[in-house]
Amino acid sequence: MFCIRACSGLVGCRTATRVRSLHSLPGITVAQIDEEVAKLLQLKAQLGGDDGKHQFVLKTAKGTRDYNPKQMAIREKVFNTIIGCFKRHGAETIDTPVFELKETLTGKYGEDSKLIYDLKDQGGELLSLRYDLTVPFARYLAMNKITNIKRYHIAKVYRRDNPAMTRGRYREFYQCDFDIAGQYDAMIPDAECLKIVHEILSELDLGDFRIKVNDRRILDGMFAVCGVPDDKFRTICSTVDKLDKLPWEEVKKEMVNEKGLSEEAADQIGEYVSMQGGMDLAERLLQDQKMSQSKQACAGLSDIKLLFSYLQLFQVTDKVVFDLSLARGLDYYTGIIYEAVLTQAGVAPVTTDAQNGAPSEESVSVGSVAGGGRYDGLVGMFDPKGRKVPCVGVSIGIERVFSIMEQKAEASAEKVRTTEVQVMVASAQKNLLEEKLKLITELWNAGIKAEVMYKKNPKLLSQLQHCEESGIPLVAILGEQELKDGVVKLRVVATREEVQLIHNTHTILDSCLT
Amino acid sequence: MFCIRACSGLVGCRTATRVRSLHSLPGITVAQIDEEVAKLLQLKAQLGGDDGKHQFVLKTAKGTRDYNPKQMAIREKVFNTIIGCFKRHGAETIDTPVFELKETLTGKYGEDSKLIYDLKDQGGELLSLRYDLTVPFARYLAMNKITNIKRYHIAKVYRRDNPAMTRGRYREFYQCDFDIAGQYDAMIPDAECLKIVHEILSELDLGDFRIKVNDRRILDGMFAVCGVPDDKFRTICSTVDKLDKLPWEEVKKEMVNEKGLSEEAADQIGEYVSMQGGMDLAERLLQDQKMSQSKQACAGLSDIKLLFSYLQLFQVTDKVVFDLSLARGLDYYTGIIYEAVLTQAGVAPVTTDAQNGAPSEESVSVGSVAGGGRYDGLVGMFDPKGRKVPCVGVSIGIERVFSIMEQKAEASAEKVRTTEVQVMVASAQKNLLEEKLKLITELWNAGIKAEVMYKKNPKLLSQLQHCEESGIPLVAILGEQELKDGVVKLRVVATREEVQLIHNTHTILDSCLT
Repeated sequence: MFCIRACSGLVGCRTATRVRSLHSLPGITVAQIDEEVAKLLQLKAQLGGDDGKHQFVLKTAKGTRDYNPKQMAIREKVFNTIIGCFKRHGAETIDTPVFELKETLTGKYGEDSKLIYDLKDQGGELLSLRYDLTVPFARYLAMNKITNIKRYHIAKVYRRDNPAMTRGRYREFYQCDFDIAGQYDAMIPDAECLKIVHEILSELDLGDFRIKVNDRRILDGMFAVCGVPDDKFRTICSTVDKLDKLPWEEVKKEMVNEKGLSEEAADQIGEYVSMQGGMDLAERLLQDQKMSQSKQACAGLSDIKLLFSYLQLFQVTDKVVFDLSLARGLDYYTGIIYEAVLTQAGVAPVTTDAQNGAPSEESVSVGSVAGGGRYDGLVGMFDPKGRKVPCVGVSIGIERVFSIMEQKAEASAEKVRTTEVQVMVASAQKNLLEEKLKLITELWNAGIKAEVMYKKNPKLLSQLQHCEESGIPLVAILGEQELKDGVVKLRVVATREEVQLIHNTHTILDSCLT
Repeated sequence: MFCIRACSGLVGCRTATRVRSLHSLPGITVAQIDEEVAKLLQLKAQLGGDDGKHQFVLKTAKGTRDYNPKQMAIREKVFNTIIGCFKRHGAETIDTPVFELKETLTGKYGEDSKLIYDLKDQGGELLSLRYDLTVPFARYLAMNKITNIKRYHIAKVYRRDNPAMTRGRYREFYQCDFDIAGQYDAMIPDAECLKIVHEILSELDLGDFRIKVNDRRILDGMFAVCGVPDDKFRTICSTVDKLDKLPWEEVKKEMVNEKGLSEEAADQIGEYVSMQGGMDLAERLLQDQKMSQSKQACAGLSDIKLLFSYLQLFQVTDKVVFDLSLARGLDYYTGIIYEAVLTQAGVAPVTTDAQNGAPSEESVSVGSVAGGGRYDGLVGMFDPKGRKVPCVGVSIGIERVFSIMEQKAEASAEKVRTTEVQVMVASAQKNLLEEKLKLITELWNAGIKAEVMYKKNPKLLSQLQHCEESGIPLVAILGEQELKDGVVKLRVVATREEVQLIHNTHTILDSCLT
């Protein structure tokens, strides 16, 4: 059925051409060659030797993956923690389609628009897969004229990025967003978003973390007072954004050499972006001769002060740092921005060079696990009359969380269970299928999670093995003697301890539940 | 930003042309005209009057919808019931990407392949959105060389169908599949699938239902002994499949006039497909002079007998009917097939004409809510060596279930809650924000679901109104007197009953939980 003789030759040929052409490229890396070789070997394996039978390629699309039952069990646990927190804070949830009209996404992602997946024009509307959950959320609010809502949305988004799957980066990946939309008093919803990040990262038990906070207005004010020309704010901002990966000297070089900023302006920025602190830093900067000249910066700094006062009441200031180097790329932020990073050693570090004036970090940062900020203008872009709905939100970097949890599960001695079965209904002799099906029906009808093997006469050993493999704690063993006596033997798989119960659903049920 | 002047004119023009051309078509229906008029009026509304400002169209893609918080609350409830049942039966879960390589889907859906959504060729692999969850499941098994698994998968699938959204049919919709893969003894997993359908439909409380059962081999055997030529089995089978919507006379006409079957053969089929029963019918047909000539039919009939013996042990025979008119369209079924229909009156009926020899039904069928069967060949289509993995599964028609549940919620006096908030932290006087944030922090940290308004000085009335609107049962009211006395006033919103509690997390916690 799938013998595509011409095609597999073609694929092989295409790959071979690519490899040949690589020889002539100066920028070829070892990793690229390894990748090509791996592809060729995979192809060879799929061709299945010399029998001439060519099979189609059995794989998932590039940058995507299946989740196996073990991964799903971990995913479910993580989701339960996160959704539990969102619900504790009174959030509703919504869902939107996986694709949107292409024009809905147009003009929202700047240069990254090239990463959007388009659907083929098969007649009808031009559609694209969603790139994030924020733009569909804004579209939803505008379309339904909703002016306030507190909602979470957990769903997959799509980016035609170069996947780095070993580092948990995929083309299809989950986003996990919590947003508060509405005209409210300053910093109250913003503070709650940070409280939520604090709760989730604490509960997930991923190790120590820090939440960096800054404000778009402080950044813009800082650029202004440091002498950055207005039209260079965005580009200088995205250079500052690299400070979590590059030392200051590199960042400065980019500002001066590539972006044409004066050395003096760059040095002034360098001074500010090395600053970290709490409410005290905001107070000091409000008195700062230069910074206080910017109205914008002052508004931002006052809000940071107010934010910290609420964070104190929320008991989360232990992890929150006001950090002037935090820049976050996205265009649509208008106020407060934040990003949470894990600081525990043990996972591959992202920042290794904490010298050269880069923010000094007591422990090694392992990259962002949450981020967000205020975006008061986005919904207005969708509203026919431009009516604004102020929004603040946070996105949990759930794929990175999955990766960490999977690593932890691998390292741990404890086995991840992929089912929740409480009891296996087994038999010691042959010809007891009927009796087993009767018993399991009683258990199912009583709400007990139970399994029976789909064989007429399975061996007792293989039934017990199945329990061990899937971590089923109890096994109810039926035998001829037990049936005569009207009892069921219930065995604890781990200890091999056995009790005889009168064959009665309630006695078995009680044992399963305790 | 979104003023696409040229475009909205163009859209208007395209629609107008379509309407004009409709006049010349003989087959134009009133519904079509209504649809066109509605589209034009919608466009007019979006053009926003006479000010010349043209806005882009604010909508979801054709055939898709957002789920609002109320719909999500219903969806969550339905999922919990269904997933609870799957877990009770020991199922694991997996997830697969929303798109597959195009060739993975090729050749699996026959004529319906035209309904597959393709992604645009943006360089790289050719991809398509998944059409169902069964083919990705088979691909997953073959790719990972899995020979046995019991898994469920709930996810959205995509079909470029003509949506009938009022009847709960969309282009993006959920499928909710449970499948058992593995080489097992006959009819044990098959019977468990029917037990699961029985449990889910009973628990969802959708009204009375029936599960029709038949077997691919019985159908084929029946066609053979009735004199249908081999090459007409499939096409005659899909005509039989229409019996749930058309009376026998219509179906017969199609067989004879369109498909060229002899009148005699059609009449013989007509006799068989009017038969319904249980194990007794299978026994009778095994003795039937004609039917017993087909080995295939006999194998199917013996399995139906065995199936019913297991169904008796599972206590579900009250709802299961062996029905020779059940044909189910899909090509990949190889053995038992089944379909569950709601039989309760009150919802728009699908079958109205139960005369003319069509299977007589005591109550009116309202269409399928679950279906499935055995497909022993599909995984082998993906395996490079054609190794087969026998599978049997069931798909719950979850979108129809959502529709019914939504209708029921609309009709019911009880309000659907979209959050789970237990207590609102409110204030009776001004300037108590700090105290409220302190209290709510205690509650959150203790795991209580709590809300506070994002205003410094909200009115007590608006805080109480919010409780009524969102169904929050308790409100903790802080006032200056209470703060002085070190107490919190806790009010039951519904009864306005009040108690004073010592301001202590545990006392409030106890009240929230009881």
